[in-house]
Amino acid sequence: MSEESLVMKQRHTLSHVLAAAVKRIYAGTTTLQFGVGPAIDNGFYYDIDFGGVKVSDEDLKKIEKEMRKIIAQNLPLAYSEKSREDALAWAEKNDQKYKTELINDLPEDETISFYTLGEEFEDLCKGPHVESTGKVGAFKLDKVAGAYWRGDEKREMLTRIYGLAFEKQEELDEYVKKQEEAKARDHRKLGKELDLFCFSDLVGSGLPMFTPRGTILRDILNDFSQSYRIKAGYQKVCIPHIALVDLYKTSGHYEKFPEMLQFVSQESGDHLALKPVNCPHHSQIFASQPRSYKELPIKYLETTMVYRDERKGELGGLSRVRSITQDDSHVFCTEDQVGQIFGELIAAAQDLYGRIDMKLKLRLSFRDDGDGYTGTPEMWQKAESAIQAMADEHKIEYFIGIGEAAMYGPKMDFMATDALGREWQVATVQLDYATPTRFGLEYVDADGSKKTPIMIHCALLGAIERFMSVLIEHTAGWFPFWMAPEQVRIVTINDSVADYAAKIREILDKTEINEPLEHRAIRYTVDDRNESLGKKIREATKMKIPCVLIVGPKDVEAGEVSVRLRDSEEKVKLEKLAEYLQNL
Amino acid sequence: MSEESLVMKQRHTLSHVLAAAVKRIYAGTTTLQFGVGPAIDNGFYYDIDFGGVKVSDEDLKKIEKEMRKIIAQNLPLAYSEKSREDALAWAEKNDQKYKTELINDLPEDETISFYTLGEEFEDLCKGPHVESTGKVGAFKLDKVAGAYWRGDEKREMLTRIYGLAFEKQEELDEYVKKQEEAKARDHRKLGKELDLFCFSDLVGSGLPMFTPRGTILRDILNDFSQSYRIKAGYQKVCIPHIALVDLYKTSGHYEKFPEMLQFVSQESGDHLALKPVNCPHHSQIFASQPRSYKELPIKYLETTMVYRDERKGELGGLSRVRSITQDDSHVFCTEDQVGQIFGELIAAAQDLYGRIDMKLKLRLSFRDDGDGYTGTPEMWQKAESAIQAMADEHKIEYFIGIGEAAMYGPKMDFMATDALGREWQVATVQLDYATPTRFGLEYVDADGSKKTPIMIHCALLGAIERFMSVLIEHTAGWFPFWMAPEQVRIVTINDSVADYAAKIREILDKTEINEPLEHRAIRYTVDDRNESLGKKIREATKMKIPCVLIVGPKDVEAGEVSVRLRDSEEKVKLEKLAEYLQNL
Repeated sequence: MSEESLVMKQRHTLSHVLAAAVKRIYAGTTTLQFGVGPAIDNGFYYDIDFGGVKVSDEDLKKIEKEMRKIIAQNLPLAYSEKSREDALAWAEKNDQKYKTELINDLPEDETISFYTLGEEFEDLCKGPHVESTGKVGAFKLDKVAGAYWRGDEKREMLTRIYGLAFEKQEELDEYVKKQEEAKARDHRKLGKELDLFCFSDLVGSGLPMFTPRGTILRDILNDFSQSYRIKAGYQKVCIPHIALVDLYKTSGHYEKFPEMLQFVSQESGDHLALKPVNCPHHSQIFASQPRSYKELPIKYLETTMVYRDERKGELGGLSRVRSITQDDSHVFCTEDQVGQIFGELIAAAQDLYGRIDMKLKLRLSFRDDGDGYTGTPEMWQKAESAIQAMADEHKIEYFIGIGEAAMYGPKMDFMATDALGREWQVATVQLDYATPTRFGLEYVDADGSKKTPIMIHCALLGAIERFMSVLIEHTAGWFPFWMAPEQVRIVTINDSVADYAAKIREILDKTEINEPLEHRAIRYTVDDRNESLGKKIREATKMKIPCVLIVGPKDVEAGEVSVRLRDSEEKVKLEKLAEYLQNL
Repeated sequence: MSEESLVMKQRHTLSHVLAAAVKRIYAGTTTLQFGVGPAIDNGFYYDIDFGGVKVSDEDLKKIEKEMRKIIAQNLPLAYSEKSREDALAWAEKNDQKYKTELINDLPEDETISFYTLGEEFEDLCKGPHVESTGKVGAFKLDKVAGAYWRGDEKREMLTRIYGLAFEKQEELDEYVKKQEEAKARDHRKLGKELDLFCFSDLVGSGLPMFTPRGTILRDILNDFSQSYRIKAGYQKVCIPHIALVDLYKTSGHYEKFPEMLQFVSQESGDHLALKPVNCPHHSQIFASQPRSYKELPIKYLETTMVYRDERKGELGGLSRVRSITQDDSHVFCTEDQVGQIFGELIAAAQDLYGRIDMKLKLRLSFRDDGDGYTGTPEMWQKAESAIQAMADEHKIEYFIGIGEAAMYGPKMDFMATDALGREWQVATVQLDYATPTRFGLEYVDADGSKKTPIMIHCALLGAIERFMSVLIEHTAGWFPFWMAPEQVRIVTINDSVADYAAKIREILDKTEINEPLEHRAIRYTVDDRNESLGKKIREATKMKIPCVLIVGPKDVEAGEVSVRLRDSEEKVKLEKLAEYLQNL
């Protein structure tokens, strides 16, 4: 028995209570075969074969009720051991084929232990548990899902019943509240409601398409991210999305991460792949002309898609996709320039996430002892020391993640915390001595000798799709004014105010908004449909338009307009409207 | 014998003269085996197997000299016929294996004819020819190239000798001059010199990468093209570059043009392809929400790459590539809206090409009797009539190209004529009744009934890569001022003028240039290297910087700057500089 925290013991016991309750309710009507029932991060589950009986969320109530009875009875959990032979006999007698399989898979010398709940439910189990069912803390059954036996798509599909469990009721309540909040903010739901992106069965899983609104948001986010680097002298380049496999043989991806490559079949006989990364292509632009030390640093910037063959089961909304837009950049520089370039990028990441109210944590991602790396041990030692020295110099708190490095070098990975307290890996800055060597890149130094440049990889948003999913849930779809695809909607009460609405449009057409990094024209629409005011306002609210200008006859008379923001409403004089909007 | 123009007969005779000259020179030293020697558009060629002897451009002089001797001898061309048996015997006796193959491939009932040049060169040949070698007009041997026998990569590689030939010497001179001009403007050469794009053997043939300068040009061209449509209410969308093959089964590409699809191999088991077109994806964005007639026309705009499996031999610079960037758009509209939308796009094409001094011709591209089309005969009749009626209405001259239609409907294809008089297919506007039906697209009409929208496809530049190749050759790399990646270069004589150069920079930083469709900051660099003025100016000229500002001590004294344009130089007062640049 391993040492476990109280709550993990409670959760584990609850999975047995769940199984016992299921047995009480269903044993007479169907054959029950039990799989596994572990404690997990927020509670527990049990995978059960209900012998063809369908169990859905509606059945959870009666199961939960029966569980509470078992808890009220405060039944003891009793530990025992059996020989392998007895254990197998037990499984056969009780017709538990999954348990038979589990027992057969146990190592030769393993002690085979059981727990009995009261006298009614005995289970193959390592424990540990709380002493009796009365000590399980607070719980709530959550949902029903399908789960393949042992996660194998070719095996039986079992019914998995999930429960939430915490030591105290307040903790459970808090968790449930957060979960509901997260559900209301689910970017898949909001993405549809705000008409930002869509999927199609014909196009395929994990391949989002961005609507006009979603594309405006994507473009604004990309401009936002790129503007930091454009100011720092980065220059845009443009590459195709395919390349000969040779490119990835040279970079090392073919050898180290063959699963990243998706091959393209051609009649022409060339052996091509979809690009899983951009750095090899960019290295070839660097290599296309002779380079002098006077030109360095050379800074390439490109937002473009890379492709990964994610498993279908792992795809969900924009969080994980098969076409991933990276706001990528690659710098080719001398050793002396590394500090300055990292400094610019660290400052950019901090400013960018500050502007959307997300706190950053820094992880220094170093290599482990595995063989999934290119470059020499000396390169790695130099690069990891440099990364740590820069983090120290910039006085940023950090932790070290062993085994989190890129194939070619160590990274600074930034984690952002969202409004619900969840952490997301976002920006990354990577130091790479290996790739330039593999590609034979060189420049002529001041003394006429040939030197190998150093590469610095960076993405500030990471993947734009994933960043959008985080941003949508972080803001609940209420984007900052400067970022909203539709910033202003003019809503008219009826056609009598049409001329006045035209005047407002004229003002908006002339007004530019102070975005964090430049001025832009206001993005607005006019809703002058022949519909009720209530309906028009409800629609604008549902679309989370940050600023709705409502125009009725009284507004016309008073020379003003009703401004409805997310949680306030006020009157603004027409001559003050431009200034008002610029201060939003 | 078919009727042929004089010049085609002359060219054909010249190919025999070429073969005879080669025989005179090489017959004693190697085994000569002759392939085919046709007349072509600008002259003639002969494919010859030199039995291992290497023939290069340097050998052309002596061959040409020998040809002129044969011409001076005015030898007659004599027609004769042989039985198949005699013809084969002739080929065997003369050890002409390619001729044997040609004779064997002739249809059973074909008359087998020969031509003898004087008494020295007899050849299997249908003719026709001029009567004697004295009547061949003006010619010049052009170049040597390799050519697979019968164009088959698996057969022997022969030596192809090309000649240019015209009736009159002036025509030949004119052609050669144009050819030299075209060579000097060759976009592959200029692309390298102006540092616009590059290729890499590791990335692969037909996959250009755009450098910072090339990317600026791409982006400006794209903004230029898109701005017409953005003003007309088009909205940007964004799609992934891959899709399930199902998408192309629905569109019809899988059945009608399977060779357009390049499949992507995945572990996940999904059957994906690189997108060869964008319309199916865009149809799925339209289909992602219920649509009302009130929303129509819906206008999507996206510049993105499509992929074609072009054969390696057909790839050359940017003219033909495997990753093709289209400035694409798709409108979904009602029948009533088609005229208005075509009108906008025709006007845009005319304005755009007018601004870069290229004249447009219009081809109405209609279907032929083949089966490479989707849609019903009724749809095609309606669409072709509509296209022709619109061309008539807009009073544009046009010609009809049968068999030039798209799979799904007829097109207006615009051809632009460049500075050398060459024609290039560029913009296209396409009317499509078929695709929306295949995808089951619909909208709710005013009366509540469900209707199928019509699609209008358009690209104004066509493929950006190909457009760039045309533009580079059309302008010889001297792009219009507003379009140049680097518009201005400040060249200082020495460090004594550094402060004055800083003042000029300040002026440039504040000056925006009137582009055709918006204002932009000036793109400039400063060359203050410690190099001679001559060298710096030569470099700026080689890079075809449209405006070079040269600053020396005398300029400082006079409060002016020397402005060097493509073919002029003048002094401009500093206070007039901004205005001067804005008028370029």
